[in-house]
Amino acid sequence: MNTHQKSHSVPVKGGRFLLIGGASLVGSTTADLLLAQGAAEVALFDNFSFGSTDNIRHLEGDKRVRIVQGDILRLPQLLAATENIDGVLHLAAVMTISMDRDSWGGLDINIRGVQNVIEACRANRVKKLVFASSNAVYGYGPGVAGDLVESTPFHSAGAPPAAIIYGASKIIGEQLCRDAHRKDGLNYVVVRYSTVYGERQHYRAANALYIIETHDRIKKGERPRVIGDGSETKHFVYVGDLARANARAFEADATDAAVNVSGPAPVTTLELVKLVIELSGSKLTPEHVEPEAGKVRLTSGGAFRIDHAAAEKAIGWKPEIDMREGIRRLLKWRDETLAAETAKGDKK
Amino acid sequence: MNTHQKSHSVPVKGGRFLLIGGASLVGSTTADLLLAQGAAEVALFDNFSFGSTDNIRHLEGDKRVRIVQGDILRLPQLLAATENIDGVLHLAAVMTISMDRDSWGGLDINIRGVQNVIEACRANRVKKLVFASSNAVYGYGPGVAGDLVESTPFHSAGAPPAAIIYGASKIIGEQLCRDAHRKDGLNYVVVRYSTVYGERQHYRAANALYIIETHDRIKKGERPRVIGDGSETKHFVYVGDLARANARAFEADATDAAVNVSGPAPVTTLELVKLVIELSGSKLTPEHVEPEAGKVRLTSGGAFRIDHAAAEKAIGWKPEIDMREGIRRLLKWRDETLAAETAKGDKK
Repeated sequence: MNTHQKSHSVPVKGGRFLLIGGASLVGSTTADLLLAQGAAEVALFDNFSFGSTDNIRHLEGDKRVRIVQGDILRLPQLLAATENIDGVLHLAAVMTISMDRDSWGGLDINIRGVQNVIEACRANRVKKLVFASSNAVYGYGPGVAGDLVESTPFHSAGAPPAAIIYGASKIIGEQLCRDAHRKDGLNYVVVRYSTVYGERQHYRAANALYIIETHDRIKKGERPRVIGDGSETKHFVYVGDLARANARAFEADATDAAVNVSGPAPVTTLELVKLVIELSGSKLTPEHVEPEAGKVRLTSGGAFRIDHAAAEKAIGWKPEIDMREGIRRLLKWRDETLAAETAKGDKK
Repeated sequence: MNTHQKSHSVPVKGGRFLLIGGASLVGSTTADLLLAQGAAEVALFDNFSFGSTDNIRHLEGDKRVRIVQGDILRLPQLLAATENIDGVLHLAAVMTISMDRDSWGGLDINIRGVQNVIEACRANRVKKLVFASSNAVYGYGPGVAGDLVESTPFHSAGAPPAAIIYGASKIIGEQLCRDAHRKDGLNYVVVRYSTVYGERQHYRAANALYIIETHDRIKKGERPRVIGDGSETKHFVYVGDLARANARAFEADATDAAVNVSGPAPVTTLELVKLVIELSGSKLTPEHVEPEAGKVRLTSGGAFRIDHAAAEKAIGWKPEIDMREGIRRLLKWRDETLAAETAKGDKK
């Protein structure tokens, strides 16, 4: 980047953005942030197979918001949606649990989908693509230990097929961006998300389920479950922090870069369950159980930590919300949502 | 495999085989071996985009040989071709150099193609699928060092996009086999080929080019070129050894297994070039040159060795032909082929 002075920054203020997979947890939170920071347009592209109208209903009154029902497997729809767009955030993907059910469909979304998005960005000269990748590019199993930095290899020995397929599909997605940068000058930043949690949490992320399931059991008066001894590491990132990372990836001068985005520190599953119990105001104690047979589980070996120093350097981002505050917000949202649903049910 | 006595062996003698990508270096050599060992049928499926009729012309008189012009992207053609087949060897793939030219096409072949092959094997109850994978699943760059065993992770930091996409596509192909085994009981063996060389050598494998290009320069009286200091490691496998590994993968009781198949020992590029010079009877000395800009190169970091102990255990295979003997055979074939072509040209 020393060879020329051209900035790769896409300012949020006054910018026009397309969020693909926009009706998701991350999409809707990023949309909120971009709008709050003065974006001129935020288009939300989604096929609503996973994304939900509930996530974006609150945006419908905003004139700057445009909702596009479309499918990333249909290139003409992407070509239409990317016209006059400055920045594209590509979130749409199939994760491990769904990949396990249908690898054909999942690979179409995670590979052909990325190809189509890149093609559309190229055709319409989009200024920057932010591609949502995953710490799944570091893989699974006993090899995943210590500090995970951006050059850490992909470990897969012993992991379930669907998890490996998911991780490898993200590796390919990243490289398709890199290839398009080299060959056609497409500017991009890969943001490798660690496990996302926060308000509007869904049931699709294998790792994030721990929080929701624990809370669900507490609400029913059942003892929360910890698989094994609970020493397994998880590293989460709060969705609001992640939304800031997406915005920073657009605004920063960075291009042709891949950075980890993770929360302040990892937790063990036992710490996590205890935190949910405490923040739920419960007196229950966790029950240690054996892993459920036949269910896709993502296990790490030793303790690990997803390092986010490169993100600070490349896009000027670091996390602000720790797990205690993040889980407090998530549980508050969930209680309010459930209360509202109950109230609605009572009126009928 | 202790829980039941069923054998996963598919005997070559009397067996019916489909070789997908059969008109290739590996396909034609494996066909020769299967026929020599008494196979009842060897069908060669190829779209002839890379495969060549030259490779299989010598087989045309054999009544047990059937040539099927078809494309793995067309499932109906695979469904027809796998009828009454005992064992399928899936070789058709796009390697790094072609992947660099056209990643859309390459990913279709390497992922959708494998999906179609698995689908056809399932539908026609093929007894075993042997999937040709690659040591590319261990990746590239400085991380690739020491003994590469089957659980070695995938290193990609610093490698060209097309190489990473190729390696990741092979990882996905392997896992699709594993998934089909788990869900539908498809028996399979993944054979991870190291760089193949031997008679009928083609120009598509980035690593094997060293042998052919060196010989070509010697023939023209030009000094053979070594990139850099020539200390870089390559680990080849002779195509005849590889054909035996394919046959053993069918005959062995093994299923749900992935094994490396490599030659007796690795070489440095300088040793390799010197060996080709010596076996060509040349007095030329190698010239050290800088890497060519813009050309896809696969570089290893430190010295490495692709361990094949697991193959001996799982499928009872080990290599027999060392580089000296293998290159001698390759050069003899090439000289004879060129002489025959010249003679043919003279007659016209």
